[in-house]
Amino acid sequence: MSIKGNIIIGQSGGPTAAINATLAGVFSAGKKLCEGKVYGMLGGVEGLLRENFVDMCEKLTSDHDVELLKRTPSSYLGSCRFKLPEPVEGNEIYEKLFEIFEKYNIKGFFYIGGNDSMDTVKKLSIYNEFKKTDIKFMGVPKTIDNDLVATDHTPGFGSAAKFVATVTKELVRDSLVYDLKSVTVVEIMGRDAGWLTGASALAKGDDCEGAAMVLLPEVPFDYEYVKNRVAELMESGSKSLVITVSEGVRTKDGKYVCELGSEKGTDAFGHTMLTGTAAAIAAMLKKDLGIKTRAVELSTLQRCASHIASATDISESFKVGEAAVKAAADGESGKMALLKRISNDPYICVTDTADVREVANLAKEVPRSMINENGDNVTDEFIEYARPLIEGELSQLMVNGLPTHITL
Amino acid sequence: MSIKGNIIIGQSGGPTAAINATLAGVFSAGKKLCEGKVYGMLGGVEGLLRENFVDMCEKLTSDHDVELLKRTPSSYLGSCRFKLPEPVEGNEIYEKLFEIFEKYNIKGFFYIGGNDSMDTVKKLSIYNEFKKTDIKFMGVPKTIDNDLVATDHTPGFGSAAKFVATVTKELVRDSLVYDLKSVTVVEIMGRDAGWLTGASALAKGDDCEGAAMVLLPEVPFDYEYVKNRVAELMESGSKSLVITVSEGVRTKDGKYVCELGSEKGTDAFGHTMLTGTAAAIAAMLKKDLGIKTRAVELSTLQRCASHIASATDISESFKVGEAAVKAAADGESGKMALLKRISNDPYICVTDTADVREVANLAKEVPRSMINENGDNVTDEFIEYARPLIEGELSQLMVNGLPTHITL
Repeated sequence: MSIKGNIIIGQSGGPTAAINATLAGVFSAGKKLCEGKVYGMLGGVEGLLRENFVDMCEKLTSDHDVELLKRTPSSYLGSCRFKLPEPVEGNEIYEKLFEIFEKYNIKGFFYIGGNDSMDTVKKLSIYNEFKKTDIKFMGVPKTIDNDLVATDHTPGFGSAAKFVATVTKELVRDSLVYDLKSVTVVEIMGRDAGWLTGASALAKGDDCEGAAMVLLPEVPFDYEYVKNRVAELMESGSKSLVITVSEGVRTKDGKYVCELGSEKGTDAFGHTMLTGTAAAIAAMLKKDLGIKTRAVELSTLQRCASHIASATDISESFKVGEAAVKAAADGESGKMALLKRISNDPYICVTDTADVREVANLAKEVPRSMINENGDNVTDEFIEYARPLIEGELSQLMVNGLPTHITL
Repeated sequence: MSIKGNIIIGQSGGPTAAINATLAGVFSAGKKLCEGKVYGMLGGVEGLLRENFVDMCEKLTSDHDVELLKRTPSSYLGSCRFKLPEPVEGNEIYEKLFEIFEKYNIKGFFYIGGNDSMDTVKKLSIYNEFKKTDIKFMGVPKTIDNDLVATDHTPGFGSAAKFVATVTKELVRDSLVYDLKSVTVVEIMGRDAGWLTGASALAKGDDCEGAAMVLLPEVPFDYEYVKNRVAELMESGSKSLVITVSEGVRTKDGKYVCELGSEKGTDAFGHTMLTGTAAAIAAMLKKDLGIKTRAVELSTLQRCASHIASATDISESFKVGEAAVKAAADGESGKMALLKRISNDPYICVTDTADVREVANLAKEVPRSMINENGDNVTDEFIEYARPLIEGELSQLMVNGLPTHITL
């Protein structure tokens, strides 16, 4: 089967180290399965509304370009945080979009993103029920947060998890150098879901003590517990501890830990923007226990560290992009391509699709069975789930001592 | 020539990704050139005073162990921040140290560290003028700050520089995704010397716009200039800018930028501990220009990111460790082993030694000729100096998706 017309691809939401691998997968399959052109919207749906897009074949002219794209962090085509209005018949924005689809003979719309992007795909496919076109609307997942339902895990998570686990391991080594009591608090992204913070537990092994506590937003943050546990570990001989904590941890009253100290803002979706969780905990522990503390925020690095991307993640991200195009060519629409784990040992993961309405605006938290009884670390079940996702490295094309990227 | 007795090695000051490669170099040459044992002090001179040390041959039992050590960040033997008193004859601490040297038949003392560690070597060799022993006291440089005199550059700088340049490149890509005006301020270590901040300029190339400004502590920080320059760049079409800034930048009145906002402390040497420089600048720009800003602190990661270590740095760090032992075996004492650049194209660097008295307590800043006229970036001279130091990568032994380290 093939797509009889042109297709367009967009990237939306926060970038990851793997979102371009998915773009590469959509592009590669699009070239094969689409009879027309493969367009790329510049800056997501917002760019599309301004008819701002490129012919991808003019930009990616060789297999080498595609390989570089897989190794380039951030969103090659740019991104946006644009929320479509409710899909009410006659709405101006939707009418404009469908006019553009018609003008450019777009028969396939592929949108790579997280929760909010799946909301866009859902609304467009609902609006298409009024318009009754034969355009296929497909979502392709991406988020370092790993919080999308239906898919076993999200493209982008494995690479972020590999960076988080690697630097946690390095920070644990670093924290042990001085013969004095110290606590290093490492802040990891994840507003409501603790998947990425949980990945820091992968650092533990024969050659690494790992983090003493791994604090997820799924468990109410109890400062007294954390303080007492640190004091207890110090008394029983530990000198330096590393605690990893999600930026989104909240007390049982629903208060963000970082609300105690720092300025807050909200993003375009009204989400509270969090910073300073680690700094707040480090300051409290220093004051109460009189020990040296430091706070490390992994910040934006964790979503763009393609220099230590997971080969498993990049390969799966590419495949899920291809799968979306294949499904559209087979007549599917209003779906999200996804990853389905067939077996854990050996690790086997295939692609599939799900109705995007079953995905959009839902979030997948770390289940209680993957968190230990005390709520201060993950269980072996989590480790078995996450470990295969960080396996393998990509060879990098290094020029002048640095990884090479591709730019528009 | 050989050393007729045992030798002891210590690591001191802040760790780096390459300090263990130097330890490996001292150990390897020590095994060949020393007739006795190779001891390692646990926790620097402080550990030595408690007679806390290990027989390195019992810990590193194969070439594989030595290779792993070269790839392990932080200080394998632990570290300390211990300042020896002035070397006055009869001083209790020195007498204790020399008793320990005699008790264990120590004939060579090797101390790997920065400025403060060279001070330790200097004082011990001065005290030896009273004691008149045949012990050889040798310093081996290490610091990510690159601020030691006499040596062309310091072991550890190249790896930190490679991490800084790599993540700057990734952050520049990340910053460009949204179609809105934004400034990302990246804070880099370096209290008085801007070498590491300067290394962020290496990110610029065919595939990267690089940082719009690179602000070193050698140039007085002028907020009005920075603000106006950002406004000017925004007006001329730039959308998102990355500014890299040293944690140690000061106004012309000598005020640290971070003093405007955050809590300060001092370390054991009385140095002011700095944090929040980027956060302070980001907050001011946001307020004054009404644009989105974010602050990224590279923090401890930049000194322990051995997963992206420079092969040039690791190799030179090893060699400089070997060179210290060879020099001691040849009868030198009170010296620091160092790196001497013979040629830049092709890059050739050899080892040498200098009197440790000409090194200790002196700091090497970035010369004015390596900073541009406006004082907001480095010149080509800097790039030519720094580029060879980040060349090459080490193969890593990856287990379960993560780099392997060696532990005591």
